[in-house]
Amino acid sequence: MSDPKKLFAALFEPKRIALIGASADPTKTTSRPQRFLRKHGFNGEILPVNPSRSEILGEKAYKDLDAIQGEIDHAYILLNGRGAVEALAAAARRGVKVSSILAGGFADAGAAGASLQDDLSRIVAETGIRLVGPNSIGTVSTDPPMVLTANAAFAIDKLRTGRWAVVSQSGSLIGALLSRADARGIGFSRLISVGNEVDLAVGEIADLLVDDPGTDAILLFMETLRDGERLARAARRAHAAGKPVIAYKLGRSEIGQELAKSHTGAIAGSDATFDAFCRRHGIARVSMFESLIDVPALLVDRPPATHSEGRGKRVAVATTTGGGAAMVVDNMAMAGLDIADPPQALVDWLKPLGIAAGEGKLIDLTLAGAKPEIVAGTIERLLADDGNDAVIFVVGSSAQFNPELAVEPLLRFAHTAKPFAVSLTPAAEKSLALLTAAGVPAFRHPESCSEAMVVCLLRTGPQPMPVLAAPSRAALDALEAGRINGFDERRAADLFAALGVPMAKSLAIPDAKRVAAAVTEVGAPVVLKILSADIAHKTEAGGVALGLMDGQAAAVAAREIEKRVRAYAPHAKLDGFLIQKMERGLAEVILGFRRDPLVGPTITVGLGGVLAEIYKDASTRIAPVDEAEAAQMIEEVKGLATIRGYRNLPKGDVAALAKTIAAFSSLAHKAFADVAEAEINPLLVKGEGQGVVAVDGLVVLG
Amino acid sequence: MSDPKKLFAALFEPKRIALIGASADPTKTTSRPQRFLRKHGFNGEILPVNPSRSEILGEKAYKDLDAIQGEIDHAYILLNGRGAVEALAAAARRGVKVSSILAGGFADAGAAGASLQDDLSRIVAETGIRLVGPNSIGTVSTDPPMVLTANAAFAIDKLRTGRWAVVSQSGSLIGALLSRADARGIGFSRLISVGNEVDLAVGEIADLLVDDPGTDAILLFMETLRDGERLARAARRAHAAGKPVIAYKLGRSEIGQELAKSHTGAIAGSDATFDAFCRRHGIARVSMFESLIDVPALLVDRPPATHSEGRGKRVAVATTTGGGAAMVVDNMAMAGLDIADPPQALVDWLKPLGIAAGEGKLIDLTLAGAKPEIVAGTIERLLADDGNDAVIFVVGSSAQFNPELAVEPLLRFAHTAKPFAVSLTPAAEKSLALLTAAGVPAFRHPESCSEAMVVCLLRTGPQPMPVLAAPSRAALDALEAGRINGFDERRAADLFAALGVPMAKSLAIPDAKRVAAAVTEVGAPVVLKILSADIAHKTEAGGVALGLMDGQAAAVAAREIEKRVRAYAPHAKLDGFLIQKMERGLAEVILGFRRDPLVGPTITVGLGGVLAEIYKDASTRIAPVDEAEAAQMIEEVKGLATIRGYRNLPKGDVAALAKTIAAFSSLAHKAFADVAEAEINPLLVKGEGQGVVAVDGLVVLG
Repeated sequence: MSDPKKLFAALFEPKRIALIGASADPTKTTSRPQRFLRKHGFNGEILPVNPSRSEILGEKAYKDLDAIQGEIDHAYILLNGRGAVEALAAAARRGVKVSSILAGGFADAGAAGASLQDDLSRIVAETGIRLVGPNSIGTVSTDPPMVLTANAAFAIDKLRTGRWAVVSQSGSLIGALLSRADARGIGFSRLISVGNEVDLAVGEIADLLVDDPGTDAILLFMETLRDGERLARAARRAHAAGKPVIAYKLGRSEIGQELAKSHTGAIAGSDATFDAFCRRHGIARVSMFESLIDVPALLVDRPPATHSEGRGKRVAVATTTGGGAAMVVDNMAMAGLDIADPPQALVDWLKPLGIAAGEGKLIDLTLAGAKPEIVAGTIERLLADDGNDAVIFVVGSSAQFNPELAVEPLLRFAHTAKPFAVSLTPAAEKSLALLTAAGVPAFRHPESCSEAMVVCLLRTGPQPMPVLAAPSRAALDALEAGRINGFDERRAADLFAALGVPMAKSLAIPDAKRVAAAVTEVGAPVVLKILSADIAHKTEAGGVALGLMDGQAAAVAAREIEKRVRAYAPHAKLDGFLIQKMERGLAEVILGFRRDPLVGPTITVGLGGVLAEIYKDASTRIAPVDEAEAAQMIEEVKGLATIRGYRNLPKGDVAALAKTIAAFSSLAHKAFADVAEAEINPLLVKGEGQGVVAVDGLVVLG
Repeated sequence: MSDPKKLFAALFEPKRIALIGASADPTKTTSRPQRFLRKHGFNGEILPVNPSRSEILGEKAYKDLDAIQGEIDHAYILLNGRGAVEALAAAARRGVKVSSILAGGFADAGAAGASLQDDLSRIVAETGIRLVGPNSIGTVSTDPPMVLTANAAFAIDKLRTGRWAVVSQSGSLIGALLSRADARGIGFSRLISVGNEVDLAVGEIADLLVDDPGTDAILLFMETLRDGERLARAARRAHAAGKPVIAYKLGRSEIGQELAKSHTGAIAGSDATFDAFCRRHGIARVSMFESLIDVPALLVDRPPATHSEGRGKRVAVATTTGGGAAMVVDNMAMAGLDIADPPQALVDWLKPLGIAAGEGKLIDLTLAGAKPEIVAGTIERLLADDGNDAVIFVVGSSAQFNPELAVEPLLRFAHTAKPFAVSLTPAAEKSLALLTAAGVPAFRHPESCSEAMVVCLLRTGPQPMPVLAAPSRAALDALEAGRINGFDERRAADLFAALGVPMAKSLAIPDAKRVAAAVTEVGAPVVLKILSADIAHKTEAGGVALGLMDGQAAAVAAREIEKRVRAYAPHAKLDGFLIQKMERGLAEVILGFRRDPLVGPTITVGLGGVLAEIYKDASTRIAPVDEAEAAQMIEEVKGLATIRGYRNLPKGDVAALAKTIAAFSSLAHKAFADVAEAEINPLLVKGEGQGVVAVDGLVVLG
């Protein structure tokens, strides 16, 4: 079924649900979907399927799907392994619109499971039935209620409704988010566990939710990324629809990446790459778990800025607890936000009340006591001030027993145009609930308040995908030459030059005899390198000589190189030498291009040299990038401060560098689809107005 | 009063408390101490002092302190400004043992307040009365109850008792910690707000608590550090007594440091310096606020390892929620912990239960369902395994409604020798309370569980302070020469050489005429530098020439240098030239020594060069350090990987570097007390076995 509206209805608003393998034993997990559907007031028909029973938990049971008359919108398969596969095949034959499979033990559980999962894929491909899972703990809508899940958290007495949807690759996490949100007075519109994503994956589900009138925000709990293009599309459509997409993703550490792999049988992908994906497509990424439910309140109805720096990052902070507010400020400042000075209008207003607000940056109302009119008057003046981009009020002890003092006066500042958030320093659940119910974003940890404000102010919308011109004839010829003969350094250089990357002047010669003439043509000093597609590490092979001052020296060096390389790699096919003009720059940059298995083409800019490698100082984006985005990447590489005007150091040609990054990133064009990786190392950045020049590079086809 | 036992009693267990300026209006903050004392069952006498009333809230009131008969243990002064100063003077005259002052508006509020605070200091110095505050919101004991505070959080119905004490520089935070801990089922033994610390400061209070039989752990909320030596002593005594000291400190960001300054009128100090202080004295530092109440359960009764790497950092993780556990693991791995593989005994035991635990690193019990005997059997086997250093169990949805499945079986693993912690993925307050009551450390956020385990495993005890030998005659002479004539480069070099720092061979000559002879003696190539205590930046002044190959070249260079320097600094006194052998190394290191106003002498090791400066790649310790600690510092400087055996790079003489760091750090000796700062930049590290050599340095007297 490919009609999104029908798919959405079958998934989230089914009228008739079959439960294949439903259990009559209420202690069994497989009895839960039926119990939860009823408990939370599902209005449609529940059709338990169990060959050995005619009735289950008060509901008529069927021996198989064929025994059921009429359409079936959604079949939840509660059988394991081979049984689940057979049930899916039966559901497909029977014309069921959507099936979900509860059981794990497929690709998440090694080779045997993977083969079973292949069977599921085959059924989906052959029959067109849509599948959630396997390893899906269920799908839930709250209004009208449709609680089709085996997750124990849904034993909750009363299911809250809400306007945020959850899509999770981890099944148990939909329960954890439900219980955590419920404890905070927050409900969801939909929750779905997508499991191993044989068919329906995060991207397609998110795309469906963009058109859900009941959903204002889409929250993702991710372990990997299986349908990146689809998710990218969904995120862009969500942005256009004014719905934030917020993601928590496992795999920030290397161990975490391995775990995500073993846990779901998927590749987690490098964290920088996922970050680049989120940034490109306008997904707000959070680092704390609870932020998934903390952050949306600040983002809904507040579209991200379109310019690259975000909405402005000056936060005014007022408080009744200096220490509590200082914690919020400390965390925000570490994450790059600025603290706004109090406006003069507020300073003047507070002065007769005995509060000297001008001196520090915090507006500490403690001295006047927490009084409703002072609190409200302060917030009003801060919200009206052009000198800040957001306002936070941090409430101290009074929040716990006297919400009337400093919490109730905040309730009317809901849905303000300017971001406004409240951070509670004590445990003050009632105040938290009051604020949440009123629609005022409220936080119980200084760290989560800070993270939410950082995401709110610094997130940007989707970046337009630069449109690449068709590659030049020269570029296509260079690619073809590399395909036929292998990409040695010269052929890689030809390709990069054709893309618009300035390459060091060089000449390829077939043997040592022509070296002297080549030096004359290129101009001394030169670098001499062996040419061979079979030798990846020329320096290690003794295949490079630097700083040759004339033809004679170069000729001697060429003979020595040939000897060393023959000894190092007796069977390598040698294609002669490359004579290259020796270049100098103010900084050495590495450009890397890679087709990532999850997010597609990426480009990375890093500083050259061993130190930059140790510091992992690099910036990654989805390729291609335009010059403006390339300039942002340059800004993100800390070590490139040396050419941005640091102390007395001469400035480098940052504009030429940005242009070259953009040109190199055009490898993302589909004409180059078989270029798996490419690297320029180093690219030398010269002084302002003097350009950049690449002196070495490689291309890997795959 | 200097007898710690008597001071402790007067502060935390007073029998007779005067409330100076007590209010009869229960809506006033100044009525709270009296109300809270009564509400929570204070057994002693409350003596309200108020000139205009004979009775306050049912208690006989006194017109002044002199109207009260007998001893007064503790007087809480509830008056503002000048009134508070006068009350303190009166209390001192009256022989009150300890006073506290509630009001702020002293050094925390600009110049006028600072002068009032000076008056308080004078009274303390002249009379010997002990003072808490000003700006102290109070002092609390829970058993027997003595709730002497104006903090609104103590309106709580029932005050929990407990065995952890809180010392806070922020008043409102004692209330926030009380309410947060109470919500978690945790109580405290004592809570005290030390305010502006005119007299009693964090260190001395902590020192008192070391001897408190009711206190097992000491928690500090800090904005600055006013009595570093005292706190250091307290932390060391606490360690000896088996009591962890755990600190949260504001001022991790620069803005946060400014804030702490304006908020309390104190200097927050650099964050790296405070870290060094904590490490030296064995204080466990936490970065999340809630960690202050989350972490102690894991530390009490588990002394830190004495060796420098901590207790071992392999954590075994078992779970009923793969996704929830992966969050904990991801956070731990980012902080440097390792995940332990499951032991074979457990793998074998789980296999017949259908759980394949060997494959990933998480032990995911989900497949077998959450069953008490499987959960308990798993934890038993993990605790018994030598292959891990700690165990975490992460509970999924069942924690919320079915604690009998996977939470109750954990209750018997309280007070295990090996650290054991439970992380709850859903909101499951009852399970959390069950675990806490049983004494099993339990966490509600993956981030806080991770931080607690990191602190538990990686913290180390106090490092012994290296005992410095008396400085050599040569060192004292060099210091004296610098005092008399100013520290030019040569005199700085003489001092460093006398301390044991290998200095590049050099000769000072009074004028350009003797240059050639000096070059012959030192040996070419040489560096020529102007000598002048008046010129701090020699290179900028044109006062340095590098790579001079013979005497003639050096003589020419000397004349040019003289011309340039005269033009640059016409009034500088020139003391001739330094001819120095030109040295090369594999890496350039910077050594910095500084007397920090808060923590005293510190030493910093960083990588030389502009990149390291940009990356802020340095390690700081309290000085002096011995060679073992210097070796740890070298490990912490990321960029020094280049000489620790990175890829094919040659190794540097790390042992000689460590020895030199230790030698340089002996500037901490009191004989050098007037050396405010010293720097060696650069110190060149040569190949293994070839030593290090310093080529430039400076000394600043202060």
